[in-house]
Amino acid sequence: MPPVVADYLQQNRDRFLDELKALLRIPSVSADPAYQPAMQQAAEFVRDQFQQMGLKTEIVPTAGHPIVYAEWLGKPGAPTVLVYGHYDVQPPDPLDLWTTPPFEPTIRDGKIYARGATDDKGQFFTHLKAAEAWLKTTGVLPVNLKFVIEGEEEVGGANLDKFLADWKQKLKCDVAVISDTSQYAPGVPAITYGLRGIIACEIALTGPKRDLHSGIFGGSVTNPVNALCRLIAQLHDEHGRVKIPGFYDDVLPLTDVERKQFDVLPFDEEAYRQELGVAAVSGEAGFSTLERRWARPTCDVNGITGGYQGVGPKTIVPSKASAKITCRLVPNQDPPKITAALEQFLRDRCPPGVTLQFTDFHGCRAFVFDTNSPYIAAAKAAVRDGFGAEPVLIREGGSIPVVLALKQVLGVETLLLGWGLNTDNLHSPDEHFTVADFQRGIVSSAALWSRLTAQ
Amino acid sequence: MPPVVADYLQQNRDRFLDELKALLRIPSVSADPAYQPAMQQAAEFVRDQFQQMGLKTEIVPTAGHPIVYAEWLGKPGAPTVLVYGHYDVQPPDPLDLWTTPPFEPTIRDGKIYARGATDDKGQFFTHLKAAEAWLKTTGVLPVNLKFVIEGEEEVGGANLDKFLADWKQKLKCDVAVISDTSQYAPGVPAITYGLRGIIACEIALTGPKRDLHSGIFGGSVTNPVNALCRLIAQLHDEHGRVKIPGFYDDVLPLTDVERKQFDVLPFDEEAYRQELGVAAVSGEAGFSTLERRWARPTCDVNGITGGYQGVGPKTIVPSKASAKITCRLVPNQDPPKITAALEQFLRDRCPPGVTLQFTDFHGCRAFVFDTNSPYIAAAKAAVRDGFGAEPVLIREGGSIPVVLALKQVLGVETLLLGWGLNTDNLHSPDEHFTVADFQRGIVSSAALWSRLTAQ
Repeated sequence: MPPVVADYLQQNRDRFLDELKALLRIPSVSADPAYQPAMQQAAEFVRDQFQQMGLKTEIVPTAGHPIVYAEWLGKPGAPTVLVYGHYDVQPPDPLDLWTTPPFEPTIRDGKIYARGATDDKGQFFTHLKAAEAWLKTTGVLPVNLKFVIEGEEEVGGANLDKFLADWKQKLKCDVAVISDTSQYAPGVPAITYGLRGIIACEIALTGPKRDLHSGIFGGSVTNPVNALCRLIAQLHDEHGRVKIPGFYDDVLPLTDVERKQFDVLPFDEEAYRQELGVAAVSGEAGFSTLERRWARPTCDVNGITGGYQGVGPKTIVPSKASAKITCRLVPNQDPPKITAALEQFLRDRCPPGVTLQFTDFHGCRAFVFDTNSPYIAAAKAAVRDGFGAEPVLIREGGSIPVVLALKQVLGVETLLLGWGLNTDNLHSPDEHFTVADFQRGIVSSAALWSRLTAQ
Repeated sequence: MPPVVADYLQQNRDRFLDELKALLRIPSVSADPAYQPAMQQAAEFVRDQFQQMGLKTEIVPTAGHPIVYAEWLGKPGAPTVLVYGHYDVQPPDPLDLWTTPPFEPTIRDGKIYARGATDDKGQFFTHLKAAEAWLKTTGVLPVNLKFVIEGEEEVGGANLDKFLADWKQKLKCDVAVISDTSQYAPGVPAITYGLRGIIACEIALTGPKRDLHSGIFGGSVTNPVNALCRLIAQLHDEHGRVKIPGFYDDVLPLTDVERKQFDVLPFDEEAYRQELGVAAVSGEAGFSTLERRWARPTCDVNGITGGYQGVGPKTIVPSKASAKITCRLVPNQDPPKITAALEQFLRDRCPPGVTLQFTDFHGCRAFVFDTNSPYIAAAKAAVRDGFGAEPVLIREGGSIPVVLALKQVLGVETLLLGWGLNTDNLHSPDEHFTVADFQRGIVSSAALWSRLTAQ
C-alpha cells in the first residue's frame, strides 16, 4: 500500500473513531418494531459516509429494513470485490447489566463499549475507512468495490435474499469480504473458513383459558409450563446428544486434518471456563470444546416464559408457556428438514390438555470455505500487514446467512476476516471492540485492496 | 334471628355493597412491596368499619403487613367465636386480560368484578355486616365475637403465627369461622371439611456469568433454561405421579365413605372441561377429577422465566433461569419434609456447569375437619337460613394455613363457610363475586350467631 495511504490512516485515526461513535449512538435494533426510526437513521448515516468519500450510493427499500448500496467501478480489468456488512444490532436487554448505556459509546481501557461495537458496526466500518483512505489520497482504488450494508442480519430477514436475486447482475463480483467474525485470540488473527448454520423457532403451549388457582384446580389440568419443560427436556439425552429423529443423519464429520488443526490451536480451557464464569464446560460427549463450538450441532433454548413473573409466590396454574429455540447446524444439515423434524418431534410428544403453536423464524445452512482458493493467500498477506502476525485458519460457531446466499446467488466465495474477539460480549451486555483492533482492521482492509490485485 | 335484624339486612343491602366497593378499590397486593401504602390503607378501612359498628378495635403492627383486630365480649357465658379473614389480595396481572380494571369494582350481570371480590374481601366482609346488623338493631350479639383480619394470607406470611402465639390468651375462643372457600356449585352451598396443604419455593439456575452468543459458545456450556426444564420434567412420571422420593409416603388415603361422598356429588366433567377451556382434563392416573383436586398432592410450576422475553428471535445462551413451584399437600404430608425432599431431588439432578439456588417461601399442612363436631349442625342450619338449601360436606383443594394455626395454637376447629363459587376467577383476571351470594352470606352469618347459642 502506498505510504500516502498509510499516512492518511494514521492521521485520521481519531476522526474514524468519532464517526464510529456517531454510528453506535443510533439504536438500530432490527428485532423490535419500536426501533424503526433508528433503523432508517442508521441507513442514512451509512449512505452519507459513502457519499462523502465519493462513491455512488443509494438506500434500497425492501419489504423490511432498507439496504445501503454503494459502488466504485473505476478500475476496469481489476477484480471486483463485494463488501457485506450489517448496520442492525441485537436488542440491548438486559439493560441493568450494562456498565454504561448500550447506545452511549464509551471508551474504557482501550475498548469502545456499545451495542454493535463489534457486531457489526465497528467491523464493517473498517472497510469504508480503508476505501476512503485510498480515494482521498490516490484518487483511485486498486480494485472495484461494491458495498452491501443491510439491516436485517440479526433477525434473519428474507429481504436480503430477494435483493441479491433482484440485483444479481449489478452485484456481479469476483470475491466477497465480510468482517463479522473474530480473531482466534488477542494477537492471533484468523481467517474463518467454516460457519455453523441455524434454525430458530418459538413454541407456545396453551392450557386452561385463564390462569387458575393452583389449589382449587391443580392436579386436574395439564400445566403448560410443566408440559413445556417435559418437551424441552426430551430434546437431549443424558450425553448431551439431540434426540430429534434424523438430526445427525446428514452431519459431515470433521476430517482428521481438521481435528488436528483444532487440536494444535492454543486453547486454555480453564481460562475459557473462567471467562464464561461456569463451574465446568460441558456439552455433547466425545467432542472437544472447540469441536462442540465449531463443528457440532446444538439445540438451545434462548428464552422461556410462562405464568407469574413478579416478586414472591403466586399460587396459579398458568394458562400459557412459551420458549424460543435455536439449533446451530453444521455441514450438511438441511434447515427446513431439521425444522420440520423438530416440530414433528414436539407435536408427537405434546400431552393432552395443551395445544402447541410452532413458529418458524428462519434458518440457514452451515458453510465450509475452500481453503485452496487463491484469495486466501491475499487475505493472509493483508491480515499480516495490518496485525503484524500470521493468521490461523479456523471455523466459527455462529451463522452468517449471507455467506451462503452469496455463494448460491452470485457464485462467489467469501473471505471472512474477523477483527474482533469472541470475548467482545457480542449479543450480551457490555458489548465492546478493542480500539487497536478497529485500527488494525482498517489497515488490513486497505492492504487487502492492493493484495487482491496480485491474484 | 329477630325480624328487626333481618329487616336491617334487607334495608341496607345497597350500602353494604357500596362499602364493599370502597374496600375493593384499595389495591392491597401483599406480594409486591410497591403496594405497601395500599396495604396500610386497607387495614385502616377495616378498622374504621369495626369502629363504626361499636367494636373495640386496633391495628396490630407485625414484622410485615399489619393485622386488624376487633372484639365484642358483651355476652358472658355465651360461646366466643373467632372470625378470620384477610384484606390482602393476589397480584392483578396479567392486566390486559381484565375486562374492567382490577381495582375499579364493576357490576355486570349480577356479579361484582374486582381483584379480591371473592378472595377474600367480599367474603369476610359479610361477617362484619352481620355483626353490625345485630348491634345496630338489638344492641347486642348472641355470641361473643373476635375478629382477626390479616394482610399476608396470599404470601403465606409467618407473622400471623407469631401474632396468634403472642395473643393466645386474648384470642381464646370456642370455635373459628372463615369464609374463604366456595359453595359446591350455584344453588349447592357447602361446608368444607378438608383443605390441602402447600409448600412453595423458587429455584434459580445460573450458568455463564452473562448471556452468551448461541453460535460462538453454544454447545460448550450447560444452558440454564434447558437444564431447568430437565429438572422440572423429572418431577413427574408419565402417569402424572410425582417422582420426588418419599413424596407419597405419608399420604392418608381417602376412605371408602369419602370416595362415595365425592362420587354422588353432582359433577359435570364436560362442563368443567369447557369452563377451563382445555381439550381434556388430566392428572394423576387412577383418580377422579374431584379426587385429584381435593385429596391428591400435586407439583405445579406457577411461573418460569429465563433469557430473552422480547419480540422475535435472539440467539443467546441465557445466563439464568428460574421457576416458582408449589406442591399441594394432603393429610398427613409434612411440609418441611416435602420441601427438603424436593430440594434434595433437584440438587441430586442438577447438572455440572450450573449452580442451583433454592428459596423456600412457605408451607402449611393439609387439614381435615371433624364432621361430628356439634358446630357443624349449627353451621348447616345457618347456611340453610341464608341460602334456602341444604349444604353439602366437601373438601377443597386450596390451602388456608390459619386453619392449622388456629387448631395448633388455640385448639379450636374452624367452620369453613364459603359464600363464593370456584368459578369466580379467584387468583385470575376478572375475579368476581355474585352479589346475591354476598347478600346470602350476610344473612347466613347473622343467623349463625344465634344458631351457635343452641350448641
